[in-house]
Parts: sequence; structure tokens; C-alpha cells
Amino acid sequence: MSDPALPPEFSLIARHFRPLAGPGSLELRDDAALLTPPPGKQLVLTADAMVAGVHFFADDPPDLIGQKLLRVNLSDLAAKGAAPLGYLMTVSTPRGTPDEWYAGFAAGLARDQAAFGCTLLGGDTTSTPGPISLSLTIIGTVTPGLSVHRFGASDGDGVWVTGTIGDGALGLQVALGALAEPSGFLLDRYRLPRPRVGLAIGGIASAGMDVSDGLVQDLGHLCRASGLGAVIDAAAVPASAAARAAGPRWLETRLTGGDDYELLLAVPPAREDALRAAAAAAAIPVTRIGTFHSGASGVMVAGPGGKPLALTKGGWSHF
Amino acid sequence: MSDPALPPEFSLIARHFRPLAGPGSLELRDDAALLTPPPGKQLVLTADAMVAGVHFFADDPPDLIGQKLLRVNLSDLAAKGAAPLGYLMTVSTPRGTPDEWYAGFAAGLARDQAAFGCTLLGGDTTSTPGPISLSLTIIGTVTPGLSVHRFGASDGDGVWVTGTIGDGALGLQVALGALAEPSGFLLDRYRLPRPRVGLAIGGIASAGMDVSDGLVQDLGHLCRASGLGAVIDAAAVPASAAARAAGPRWLETRLTGGDDYELLLAVPPAREDALRAAAAAAAIPVTRIGTFHSGASGVMVAGPGGKPLALTKGGWSHF
Repeated sequence: MSDPALPPEFSLIARHFRPLAGPGSLELRDDAALLTPPPGKQLVLTADAMVAGVHFFADDPPDLIGQKLLRVNLSDLAAKGAAPLGYLMTVSTPRGTPDEWYAGFAAGLARDQAAFGCTLLGGDTTSTPGPISLSLTIIGTVTPGLSVHRFGASDGDGVWVTGTIGDGALGLQVALGALAEPSGFLLDRYRLPRPRVGLAIGGIASAGMDVSDGLVQDLGHLCRASGLGAVIDAAAVPASAAARAAGPRWLETRLTGGDDYELLLAVPPAREDALRAAAAAAAIPVTRIGTFHSGASGVMVAGPGGKPLALTKGGWSHF
Repeated sequence: MSDPALPPEFSLIARHFRPLAGPGSLELRDDAALLTPPPGKQLVLTADAMVAGVHFFADDPPDLIGQKLLRVNLSDLAAKGAAPLGYLMTVSTPRGTPDEWYAGFAAGLARDQAAFGCTLLGGDTTSTPGPISLSLTIIGTVTPGLSVHRFGASDGDGVWVTGTIGDGALGLQVALGALAEPSGFLLDRYRLPRPRVGLAIGGIASAGMDVSDGLVQDLGHLCRASGLGAVIDAAAVPASAAARAAGPRWLETRLTGGDDYELLLAVPPAREDALRAAAAAAAIPVTRIGTFHSGASGVMVAGPGGKPLALTKGGWSHF
């Protein structure tokens, strides 16, 4: 483990990342992982990058950064109805990043590997002259025919969400000092998504995705992919007690801010009972907030009296 | 393609990355790819990150950056004896990166997808306040039992390399202005690796890896993984005409510099003919440069008269 002939990056990998490695990883001693796909399953693959100063704050606790990196990807798997299998990760850090940072980062990953059932397959560590840059590719499995996509919703399907919407966006405002919320609930929701892994939406949802760029924008994606429009009732969008306490001036932030990592689903009326049963089995709250329709495309948010709310922005863009 | 309701990152993806997408990618319209693993195959997975200012120069031609990103990963697949299938990629760029940069980057990827036989499955684009940061996870397939690993070499196996060694490291010195080489051959070798995809090493090589951190260091990894030592003959290490023309003072750079992306293989004497036949079939030169032995661990480089060369460094470390 402390072979003097090995450069520091290998000792870094041995100390912090090898304990995370699982079947197929060859203990990170090789250049590649070797995976025998589970028979009869399809693979679901997705990748997300996170950059300090964009997706998290450089001085956020490193265990929460590791957990968030894994969880934003787990959230994408959950939205496809897939079960996590393993992941590859690249970690680019400034020279001189203290060993404690890596230890904390790996501890967060270890905690969530245990919680969500996946292991590290491989990856790469490099230095960077810029901010910490992380990238994670996750692999999940799904029974053929049961994966859920952005397309597939029909006229009359309900618009459903899990959990509460807007906590992550309000938590970012807390982090920026624009909103006070002494309990820390909202900040925690921004820092640590709760991916809805385990909600068995295959065969129930006709379409779905996770809400990461804001409810209105992401619902627009579902509509566009299915060639539909949607109407949602602002009052029906579930809010946490902390979000409600922030007051009505934060309504637009709740509806258009990002970082929810809840699931947004299209569910035919005939399958609502099945959704409720699946949600109860997974102990995940689900709420119907509106309806897809074959009329004009786009998303209408109905406010008091059914009048459309005028929203000044649709969601979050990186460019 | 120019839906005004879509934020700019979606139009960026549609313009530049959707044309790269292949089977399973769902045309990058979803959050995840859906892949049915080829029956009877194992998957080989590997990931590499590249950061401007560390792995390439920010003003390198963007098509070469795209090709290098794909090729360093293809090289890892080649070293495992795997055939490329598809890849996921995350791209973090400074705001204001011109559209021409993405167009060039994607053109390089498109060229190499066609050359090496793989397609884009998915990924993520984000902004960064730092240098361009790229990460690519590649997936390949291999017949079970025929993958090649770092471990597995035996006493008496030959040490073999493909192509020529040291061109990439000398090319970096050209880029840094420390070495003049008017033809541009060495600089091109630094910027554009030639991954040895297609060399059928399964069942022939007892161990293998690609040379990315320097021949001596990477051979040390093979030795360590197999519990062996190795002796190589400096004069037998194949050099290009341009590398030879640079003169003997660059010998250590050739042997310890990185960025070769040639294959380093352990081959039992009884399989040398099979290796030569496979190499001839793929039109890839192979050269025996030494022998693995069960004596003292570590790598000895024999110079003139068989005396050990004293090397001041073992290879490249990122930390």
C-alpha cells in the first residue's frame, strides 16, 4: 500500500478508492473493469458531471459532495425504473488537495453504496489547475420492456411527482444568503438529494424523468418528447413545511428552480392505484399535480382561480 | 432544433452531439441510454479524464482533443483485448466557448467513431469556471475468458511492445519548445494517439496494459501485478526515425515519458508465433524488448554492455 516505487496517485487510489471497489472492478488494479451482464436484463447507463462553483461549493463537506455525485446519477436511474449495479468515476482535483478531502469524499460514497446497493467499478484520478471536477457514469439494470422514458405519455395521463418540489432551489437561496431558514432543512435538501431508487414505476408510468432543472422546464421536456401539452395546478404542487414557511414570494423559485431530484411521471388513470401501491411499498409519497393533454404544446401553470401564472423563467440552463 | 423554449445547452447537444449518437442512445433525448448487452459477451469498462493544461493544451485543435479523448480510452480497451461498443462523455467548458470549438470537437469524435467502430450513448454538458474538463467512459465487449489483465505473466514470458516508444513524450517536449522537430511527426504523435484496437491478444498475451505513464513505470505495474521482475534492453526498445534523430540525450525521456498509447504485453515463448500472426493480420508492428523473471522485483533497463541504466525518474504521476 505504501510501495515507494509507486507514484502518489496510486497510493491515493489504494487508500481511498480501493475500499469502494466491488465485483468486476478487479480491485482497481487494472485499467478496466470486467462485467458479466446479469442474464435477461437490459443495461441503463447515464453520466453526470459536477464542478465546484457550479454544482456545489468548493468548501461543502466532502462526504456530501461524494454523496451528491452518486445520488444525482442514482436519480436518473430511478427515473428509468432501473436498479443500480455499479459506477465509474473520474476525479480531477487541484494539487495539494488534502488527504482528508479524499477520505471524506470516499466516506460519503461508501455510505451511499451501502444505502443504494452499488459499487465502484473503475475510473481515473487526475490533477487540475481549476476547480474540482467530478464525473460519474452509473450502470443499472432493468427488465426488458419495463424501462421508462421521456416519451410515451398520452392525452389524459396524470402528471405526478414524488416527495416535495422546490426544497433544493430554496436551499440554494439559503446557501447564497438570500433566504433564512434556521433549521437547515432546505440547505440539506440542496446539498443532499434523495434519489427515489426503489419506486417500481416500470409498467406503471407511461413516461418519466427526474426533476433536476426545475419542474416547469422538465415537464416541458416530457411534453415535447410525447407531443403533448400539460396543465398543472400550482396549489397542488407538494411543498415541504419549510418551503411553505418561506412564503408565496418564493413560489416561482419552487416551480422553476432546480435540484429537486424527485421523479416526474406520466401515469394513465387506470394505473393510479398501481402507482399508489408501488409508492406505499417504497414509502415514497406521490402526488398528482395535473394532466397531460393533446391541445397546445407547452406547460401551463394554473394559479388561483385557474388563471395561468406568468413565470419569468422556465428553468435552469448551464449556458 | 431551434425551439426557443429550450435552453442553449439543449440546442448545443442537438447541433453537435446528437449526430454522434448510436443504438441505445435514444438519440440523447432521454436521461439515460438503454443497452442490450451482446449475448455471450462480457463487458469491459474504463474511464479517463482529460483537463486542459494537464492532458492537452487549451488551444490545441478541438478535433484533435476529441480524438485524443476517445483514443486514450480505446487504448485501454485494446490492452484488454476488447472491441469498442459505445461511450458516455461529460464535457465541462467555460461559458462563451465558441460554437466552432464544439463543432470541431464533435467532428474529431465523428471521425474516430467511424474509424474504430463505436457510437455515443449519452453524457452531460455543463459549464465550468475553470479549464475545459472532459471525461469519457467507454464500453467494450470481449469473449469470456479472453480478456487480458495486468496480472497473469509468468517467469520467462517475453516483454513485448507495439509500434515505437517515446514519440509522445518527445512530442510533448516539442510542444513545450524544448525540442525542435520540423516535420511535425513527434508533435502529432503527442496530440493524436494511435490506439492498437484490433490486435487480437486474447489467448496470446498472458498479461498486458497500454503504455500511458511511461514504459518503465507501466512495466513496473505489470511486474508488481504478476509478482515478477523484468529486464529490458534499451537498445531493443523500438524508436521512430524522428525519435532516433533527436539523439541519445532523449533516451531517458523515451523510456520514462508518457503518452505512448502502445500496448505492453507479456507473451509466453510458445505463443510468440501466434502474436506475430495476429500482429501481421492487424498490420501492427510488435517487438520483443525483454523478459519477465521470478528474481528481484522491479524493472532493470540494460544499457550498453548489459549494464543497468540509472534512470532518475520512473514515469509520470499526476500528484
